[in-house]
Amino acid sequence: MKNTMPTFTNIEEAAARIAGNIHTTPLLKSRTFNEQTGTITYFKAENLQRIGAFKIRGAFNKILQLSDDEKSRGIVTYSSGNHAQATALAARSANIQCLVVMPEKARTSKRTATEGYGAQVVLAGKTSEDRFNRAMELHKESGYTIIPPYDDSYIIAGQGTCGMEIVKQYSDVDAVLAPVGGGGLIAGCALAIKTLKPTVRVIGVETEGADDANQSFRQKKLIRYEKTVTIADGMRNLSVGNLNFEMILRYVDDMLTVSDADVIEMMRFFFERMKIVAEPTGAVAPAAVRVHSDMFKGKKVCAIISGGNIGTEDFCSLLNYS
Amino acid sequence: MKNTMPTFTNIEEAAARIAGNIHTTPLLKSRTFNEQTGTITYFKAENLQRIGAFKIRGAFNKILQLSDDEKSRGIVTYSSGNHAQATALAARSANIQCLVVMPEKARTSKRTATEGYGAQVVLAGKTSEDRFNRAMELHKESGYTIIPPYDDSYIIAGQGTCGMEIVKQYSDVDAVLAPVGGGGLIAGCALAIKTLKPTVRVIGVETEGADDANQSFRQKKLIRYEKTVTIADGMRNLSVGNLNFEMILRYVDDMLTVSDADVIEMMRFFFERMKIVAEPTGAVAPAAVRVHSDMFKGKKVCAIISGGNIGTEDFCSLLNYS
Repeated sequence: MKNTMPTFTNIEEAAARIAGNIHTTPLLKSRTFNEQTGTITYFKAENLQRIGAFKIRGAFNKILQLSDDEKSRGIVTYSSGNHAQATALAARSANIQCLVVMPEKARTSKRTATEGYGAQVVLAGKTSEDRFNRAMELHKESGYTIIPPYDDSYIIAGQGTCGMEIVKQYSDVDAVLAPVGGGGLIAGCALAIKTLKPTVRVIGVETEGADDANQSFRQKKLIRYEKTVTIADGMRNLSVGNLNFEMILRYVDDMLTVSDADVIEMMRFFFERMKIVAEPTGAVAPAAVRVHSDMFKGKKVCAIISGGNIGTEDFCSLLNYS
Repeated sequence: MKNTMPTFTNIEEAAARIAGNIHTTPLLKSRTFNEQTGTITYFKAENLQRIGAFKIRGAFNKILQLSDDEKSRGIVTYSSGNHAQATALAARSANIQCLVVMPEKARTSKRTATEGYGAQVVLAGKTSEDRFNRAMELHKESGYTIIPPYDDSYIIAGQGTCGMEIVKQYSDVDAVLAPVGGGGLIAGCALAIKTLKPTVRVIGVETEGADDANQSFRQKKLIRYEKTVTIADGMRNLSVGNLNFEMILRYVDDMLTVSDADVIEMMRFFFERMKIVAEPTGAVAPAAVRVHSDMFKGKKVCAIISGGNIGTEDFCSLLNYS
């Protein structure tokens, strides 16, 4: 499969390929949330996924289909967030050498976590471009296969298995909301959902300080920001991927935004009312159901909690008790 | 049923009576926890129970069996923790008037929460004795039925449904650990478990600063402390109940303690690794599996997370980022 748009068949293949390596995460609900919003909302709990985020789906799908030759040469990735941990875990489980390119000043805790999954950290410069370039060098010079975070057919197909699960678990769902960072999750889920049940509305959500995909969607051309400012670190990308954007235009019905303050309130609600932890990016799509509840009154909604990876220290500092 | 020890049949009746009003909570596991402890541990997630704690089981069981006459006169309780919320919710759902006696200086947030469940707050003195006496007055003068927090046959039978679920969900379990406050949960669960599978070891856990039940268990007589000091507010009782103690002596195999610091580490683990929230009392039994892991090596263990009711502010202050 070249790096072209995946098909629904590719998502079905992905589901078969990664089964046993990922969890079928539960749909959770809160009576209080539903009373407050006038909706019948279920949260797809990818915060309870392995490594604490949906990213493990794409990582396993990409890695498990590598040729024996590629596997023997090892892999490299240049994202330091959930994708890096997902790639490291999938690589370890497939017994493949894994390099993760991180900024020279990466936090010790992030290095330790990545090394804890058995990956080797390579330091390079300050910017994401520095890291991408270093990964490309490692690819060209030593044959490491690059595992991109989102702009990749296998990664997108892997993330799409989440959308497939949602339709199976909540067959009469009216609308599905997913957060949009690089666009892997929304692209894959939109393809899966629109294939299985075309009447379901698929909606992408960003924070106001990182609404590049909203702008791209409205203007129908791929916008790249100079910078993004948001507590939702999973959507600090300056733009979505090319493949991702093509799929968003084709399959996504609408895009919404919420504020950072909305995200924090949603995180607090998850903690206090539902006893679960969402990282900021993970609370973005759920927050949109509350903020834009007029759009969803009486509807059967599924909002994806994309991840739950936040330390207690960062959590408490965000919630303003630091 | 007089206030004598419940039988296993009473627990089966309780399960039938409260079905539909409570959740069958899931068993959760963590590969990391199992690697660290060398056990095969599942956590019974009563933090995901309605009102965020197992207390709803006993409250519904007690309230749903009241006579029409008792129901029409209303109920009163004198605990201000999870039992009060459970009683208030069960009463509202059965359309019964509910009074909750609280100390004169009760926190506004606690009053608001209790009133939010539709209960009426009655203020009385400072000590738990003041509150108990006021409840007795309301019972004698106006016919309100007292819903005691633990020293009651129906309450114990209700909490026992949790133990029954554990044996059904984890049929080859070797040991079950439950926290011990007033002793309702451990007494009911021990009866259920020992009836269904007598070889399962049933173990009660307390914090070091509130180990009255440990002492009572070892000395085989009911010890009442002058005071208890622990972050686990669900086990600040000065002693277990009479009925509870009788059942502990008969059905419980062992009692353990953990420190407050162990509890905090367990809460942090739940948050960071499992993305779930446990209140201090809820982390006590799980902490014992780690602290006393030598006792459980290679064993199939179930530790009950009894509740998850803690605000973000208290959580962050406990975890020392305040």
